[in-house]
Amino acid sequence: MAHPDSRLETCITEVWELLDRIGQQTTDKPGITRAAWSPADEIAADGVRDFARRHGLQVLNDAFGNIQFLMPGVDPTTPCVTTGSHLDSVPHGGNYDGLAGVAAGLAVLAAASADTSSRRYPVRAVAMRCEESPWFGTAYLGSRLMLGLSTLDEIGDLVRFDSGRSLRHHIQQSGYPRQGEALAPLLDSTLVTAFLELHIEQGPLLDASDLPVGVATAVRGNVRFPEARCAGAWAHSAALPRSFRQDAVLAVAELALGLDAFWKGRIAEGDDNFVVTVGKFSTDQTLHAMTKVAGEVRFSLNIGASVKSTQDAARSLVFELVKDIESRRGVTFDLGQEVGTPPTALDRRLIELLEESARTDGIATKRMPTVGHDAAMFARAGIPSAVILVRNANGSHNPDEALDLQNFAAGVRVLSRTVHRLANTPQTSLRN
Amino acid sequence: MAHPDSRLETCITEVWELLDRIGQQTTDKPGITRAAWSPADEIAADGVRDFARRHGLQVLNDAFGNIQFLMPGVDPTTPCVTTGSHLDSVPHGGNYDGLAGVAAGLAVLAAASADTSSRRYPVRAVAMRCEESPWFGTAYLGSRLMLGLSTLDEIGDLVRFDSGRSLRHHIQQSGYPRQGEALAPLLDSTLVTAFLELHIEQGPLLDASDLPVGVATAVRGNVRFPEARCAGAWAHSAALPRSFRQDAVLAVAELALGLDAFWKGRIAEGDDNFVVTVGKFSTDQTLHAMTKVAGEVRFSLNIGASVKSTQDAARSLVFELVKDIESRRGVTFDLGQEVGTPPTALDRRLIELLEESARTDGIATKRMPTVGHDAAMFARAGIPSAVILVRNANGSHNPDEALDLQNFAAGVRVLSRTVHRLANTPQTSLRN
Repeated sequence: MAHPDSRLETCITEVWELLDRIGQQTTDKPGITRAAWSPADEIAADGVRDFARRHGLQVLNDAFGNIQFLMPGVDPTTPCVTTGSHLDSVPHGGNYDGLAGVAAGLAVLAAASADTSSRRYPVRAVAMRCEESPWFGTAYLGSRLMLGLSTLDEIGDLVRFDSGRSLRHHIQQSGYPRQGEALAPLLDSTLVTAFLELHIEQGPLLDASDLPVGVATAVRGNVRFPEARCAGAWAHSAALPRSFRQDAVLAVAELALGLDAFWKGRIAEGDDNFVVTVGKFSTDQTLHAMTKVAGEVRFSLNIGASVKSTQDAARSLVFELVKDIESRRGVTFDLGQEVGTPPTALDRRLIELLEESARTDGIATKRMPTVGHDAAMFARAGIPSAVILVRNANGSHNPDEALDLQNFAAGVRVLSRTVHRLANTPQTSLRN
Repeated sequence: MAHPDSRLETCITEVWELLDRIGQQTTDKPGITRAAWSPADEIAADGVRDFARRHGLQVLNDAFGNIQFLMPGVDPTTPCVTTGSHLDSVPHGGNYDGLAGVAAGLAVLAAASADTSSRRYPVRAVAMRCEESPWFGTAYLGSRLMLGLSTLDEIGDLVRFDSGRSLRHHIQQSGYPRQGEALAPLLDSTLVTAFLELHIEQGPLLDASDLPVGVATAVRGNVRFPEARCAGAWAHSAALPRSFRQDAVLAVAELALGLDAFWKGRIAEGDDNFVVTVGKFSTDQTLHAMTKVAGEVRFSLNIGASVKSTQDAARSLVFELVKDIESRRGVTFDLGQEVGTPPTALDRRLIELLEESARTDGIATKRMPTVGHDAAMFARAGIPSAVILVRNANGSHNPDEALDLQNFAAGVRVLSRTVHRLANTPQTSLRN
């Protein structure tokens, strides 16, 4: 597992300390809170900018507060292989979801710029804003703005849930765009030849498999019904015979277990690209009783799939189950607003390159689908993209995220070797 | 369907007006509220006492406010066939659950006492208190005290949920025992030769079958878990694979549907004596989210059966299902406190007598199990007991109870004919 490049190892140790320091400065017990475009977000931004400047890297802010880092002397409009992740966390989350990927990019760039053989490579690191959806009710705001997939005209009026103030207000309040500074260019597929994101694994598979690194095959899409409802009829629990019941609890129970059975079937066929969750399931606290048949249940439905055909099949199954349950149980479903995104396939060549890099360093890997990351936005912008997952106990979006240095270092080595190979590759050959 | 006794028909019309008047006086929109031992309860008590006295009946209060009515000149300690029901309602309930059975008994006694051929019959009507469980958290308090099944020493400290005051306080506040009045005797199986209760049907079967009268075969017992809980593990809805999930929603859904399948099986075998309801089913409002696997569900479980072997089988099934689901889904159930009562078989000879009376009057009937009534306490006291159910739309325990005069009259005719036959029967022959 030893890596020959002692510069990289030094930089990994330094960014690990940086990660720890930022975590301490943005502690909000329990856990960490770095609200998008908040003072805590700026503490993280200042931390990574200071680190980059100390290592002689170029630092450019874009109009929205996303940060681009380049080797000294590289023109910001040079087509570059790009790596990075986001600065923000969920409320009371952990320190590593997002920030670990920013730190990894900085380590790779800092090590490369310290080496005369690579200090002019077309490599860009990025630190993005607001990947997490709680802040404005939707994800990837920073990367969408940075890649030109959305404009501030379109989304500037979104309101942050905790402040009640707009996205536009919070960006201005954080000081962007910065007066008298060169502005980082809008990125698109002409400026980004490939995008690699290092991210902690948010599930337990690597930990359970005792593997340090995973390579993502796809970013799961989803079909979501955040505020669904099933209406039955309230009735006397002892007096009403079964054939007269319109029991909303049993109806939603059947829907949930019907989708769980579909999932079980996918797994039995060797397909690990599907998930489904009924996270909310509640009878009305003011009306329900032990002695009443439930006349209403409010629930949520969240389906994820990394292949479009599976996502479509599951969505169709929802409507089939609803129709069948309605006719058998005399209830009425109102699924409410449907939201969602299609699944995003990641770049097959990059996946193979990452695996090759890992093998070279003797690092064992595993392929697996992953959940939403900024990489999905790069893929949507037509940029070949991939995600390196790093083993992390206890999942993410909670105070117990538990990345350790050894696994982080393994991920950064795989990232670094791949970035260098791509930076040495004629740019045109990356497109198929 | 014509009944030959015009005195009974007149009395039915009069108690129907009494029912209506008491309903108006105890309106508490929506619906009717007659809290046990409240001023509204006394309005009903005064109404039925006034009616009885106007018809020359003896009126005796017991130490707890239960009222006994007898033909003029009958010694209160004579063994009597007895009929009646309760005065109280649930909060915002309907007018007929309970009060219709009190009115029916008064109509039978008033008509009989107006006829010289029957005016000395050993027949007793009763108006009981607090049959409904919401007031003190447990049912049948009046009949339990009247029959000596419980004493005030034992249950006097129970607290009424709306006032925070004790049962003892409320009985005293209502003026019982009444100073300077003869006290009604404690009833037991030596003073009650048989008990008949007329009660509105609380389900839809008679309405659906277009039949005026039902004859109850048994009072359902129940096994109840009012505050059960299933603990799983909160997790990321997209990132956690199925085999790692400890999903409390799916676990409780399986339990509910497992019991529903048992019910379906009972019905397929022609058994209509079982019911099961999961009336409460809630993920935690402060912790649940569309994007989280549910780590906890709180729920209630209410099983009813009119045959003990079925009740025992269903109870065993609960524990089998819980064990199986725990092992498959990695959750932990805590069913909480178990409460319940055994089912009560009603008297076969009385059931046949009621059916015979109905046939004589050309009234079609149907046998069916019923839910808890005061009659269950008489049966528990060793008294042969039966329940006449009267067609009523919209169930009970709600403002929409909808007894109509025609069906009420049919029920009272069946009651009257049966009471007269029993009062003419040598008392010893009623015991087998």
